Amino acid sequence: MGTRRPLITLTSDFGTRDPFVGQMKGVILNTNPDVELVDISHEISPHNIREGAVLTGMSYEYFPVRTIHLVVVDPGVGSSRRPIIVATQNHYFVGPDNGVFSMVYRKEKDSLRVIHITSEHYFLKKDSTTFHGRDIFAPVAAWLSKGIPVDHFGVRIDDFMNIHLPEPGMPSRNTIEGEVIYIDRFGNAITNISSDLLNDSVNGGGRLRIVLKGRVVPVKSCYAEVDDKELYCLINSFGFLEFFICRGNAAESFGIRIGDTVGIIKG
Amino acid sequence: MGTRRPLITLTSDFGTRDPFVGQMKGVILNTNPDVELVDISHEISPHNIREGAVLTGMSYEYFPVRTIHLVVVDPGVGSSRRPIIVATQNHYFVGPDNGVFSMVYRKEKDSLRVIHITSEHYFLKKDSTTFHGRDIFAPVAAWLSKGIPVDHFGVRIDDFMNIHLPEPGMPSRNTIEGEVIYIDRFGNAITNISSDLLNDSVNGGGRLRIVLKGRVVPVKSCYAEVDDKELYCLINSFGFLEFFICRGNAAESFGIRIGDTVGIIKG
Amino acid sequence: MGTRRPLITLTSDFGTRDPFVGQMKGVILNTNPDVELVDISHEISPHNIREGAVLTGMSYEYFPVRTIHLVVVDPGVGSSRRPIIVATQNHYFVGPDNGVFSMVYRKEKDSLRVIHITSEHYFLKKDSTTFHGRDIFAPVAAWLSKGIPVDHFGVRIDDFMNIHLPEPGMPSRNTIEGEVIYIDRFGNAITNISSDLLNDSVNGGGRLRIVLKGRVVPVKSCYAEVDDKELYCLINSFGFLEFFICRGNAAESFGIRIGDTVGIIKG
Repeated sequence: MGTRRPLITLTSDFGTRDPFVGQMKGVILNTNPDVELVDISHEISPHNIREGAVLTGMSYEYFPVRTIHLVVVDPGVGSSRRPIIVATQNHYFVGPDNGVFSMVYRKEKDSLRVIHITSEHYFLKKDSTTFHGRDIFAPVAAWLSKGIPVDHFGVRIDDFMNIHLPEPGMPSRNTIEGEVIYIDRFGNAITNISSDLLNDSVNGGGRLRIVLKGRVVPVKSCYAEVDDKELYCLINSFGFLEFFICRGNAAESFGIRIGDTVGIIKG
Repeated sequence: MGTRRPLITLTSDFGTRDPFVGQMKGVILNTNPDVELVDISHEISPHNIREGAVLTGMSYEYFPVRTIHLVVVDPGVGSSRRPIIVATQNHYFVGPDNGVFSMVYRKEKDSLRVIHITSEHYFLKKDSTTFHGRDIFAPVAAWLSKGIPVDHFGVRIDDFMNIHLPEPGMPSRNTIEGEVIYIDRFGNAITNISSDLLNDSVNGGGRLRIVLKGRVVPVKSCYAEVDDKELYCLINSFGFLEFFICRGNAAESFGIRIGDTVGIIKG
Repeated sequence: MGTRRPLITLTSDFGTRDPFVGQMKGVILNTNPDVELVDISHEISPHNIREGAVLTGMSYEYFPVRTIHLVVVDPGVGSSRRPIIVATQNHYFVGPDNGVFSMVYRKEKDSLRVIHITSEHYFLKKDSTTFHGRDIFAPVAAWLSKGIPVDHFGVRIDDFMNIHLPEPGMPSRNTIEGEVIYIDRFGNAITNISSDLLNDSVNGGGRLRIVLKGRVVPVKSCYAEVDDKELYCLINSFGFLEFFICRGNAAESFGIRIGDTVGIIKG
């Protein structure tokens, strides 16, 4: 991995009170003491694979080339669901084959290799049926960070699990229908409608009305542009449509929830 | 400590909102900038020494040899309770002599040395009576990580404080009685009954019934083996009996609490 | 920055569930893979600049010389508020010019240089109007950690924003009036009354009565000195007057809140 310290990120639904994340880090450092560890989030809602997929998809591209992303949201641990490594042009991912890498699959479809991890000599000796994060994923990530080639860990598969992540649709010629896919700590409601899609819509000219919960919502360019407590939207730092209120919690104030429909009406 | 970066883990009841953990890290890095820091948990319930003892006992063995474990759950700070270093065959521990290392004492009784820290020149100059985590334990851990021998920090003691951690008993020839000692983020209820103890019980043949809250609970081998919402148990990744429900919170659904009695009835 | 690994601390109101902190770390490590990252707190109350100022002021001095402190509490992101670097004798700070460094200004007034960051070639290419933590502050901190001189990032300013942090007053000759400025996880209520101020007050002899919520509160020297559930106070590890109860939550038990008046009456 060159002379730079190798980098492993950790994402899970383990929380930060229990010792599980610490144990995974201990196992990793036991195999590769030179690795740099960065937490992305351990507060994925318990067993929420889709939330893990969204958070992973929002984050990995900001990390250096050859970063290894360990993602453990694993309600099926111990069952027949497979442990996998996902290799893309610039990144590696290690975790369960349950769809938690679905946003990576969508973004990186041209450079994707998925390996079913079968080489048990890379596993922790004390292999359990309830904590593959510690016993399989952490040691595999550590060995990968030491430069073991991806192919050594198992066999390539093509039937990996891809979960449905909501995509915007066009129910009529002048309408785009998307939805809220994430609500952040500030109560901002992030949708799956990209700025590209909005730009395409206005290419033919005309105006757009953005509708959420029966309300037409004005578009602004940054949070600080308004100072009342009405609902507004903007293109956020990921390039997606997001609803907010000024220095307040939009989701709470307007009862916005994940899955709420967002309409874009042209003309 | 060789050429590998020395490693210090941190466990406390300080939470992650207040600046206390950050300050301890600053003090450590001021003395030894080459150290690697890993958080285990800072969400021990305030002043809960027993919880700190359980979490520490569950975690330290996963870390590399010569790791230094800094544990600060310290309701008696400023009183006459002593600051100590615990040295075992493979690990070091730094913290208050209030029982927070009791699970380490039990597991490592053959290689135990406990040092009362008295060498004040290793303390932070600004010594306070309310924050020994920052002023005593953090700098001592940092100096220890630089290779200062354990003996230089003080004098060996044998009367260190060992708190009662519940052990399973045998109230009758065919019954084992243990208890729930930890409930994790998922609502899984971890007991103090080890797989070794269960295996010994069935050695003479016969069946075991596992009873919690008046209910006989079936044994499974992994969380994913069931898909209803009944209560089940399994041997967890630490080798202990644990109660769970499928993709749900067993502790909440069945009102399980720390200290609840678990019965194993033979025959 | 010498041969030691450069150090960047991170403080924000981003919480630890969302991927924002992880993204900032990815951006930093992309520019400077050799940097050491330490979290101070990401649980500043959303948009609470004053809380960010207090936490930053309580923490930075414990870190090594030349540490870079990245602080992002930034409700005005995207508006005309400027991004700044604050350089003091021993530390660097990077963040928004909204007063979040006010306690630093007060403590370091003799060695203060404040730079308005204008050199956009140090910014992340994908510059957004809603996440300057990732797009401006993180990359600037990373370049600073690589040894780019402060002057290269922009122009010096003197009209930086300084918010009012409450200072104790003397409403009459024998009275000091201060207030509660922070409540920690344990429910201890930290005031803005320093031990120096208290010592000055008793220099002429006489006794002091400390009054909170109509109650005269006895002074102790450490938490463990008492064992009942009355309200007490002490000089804490930062050298400030603090209210506490023995192994309990003083703020909850006595209804203490930030901003509550604390009176010191002499004689």
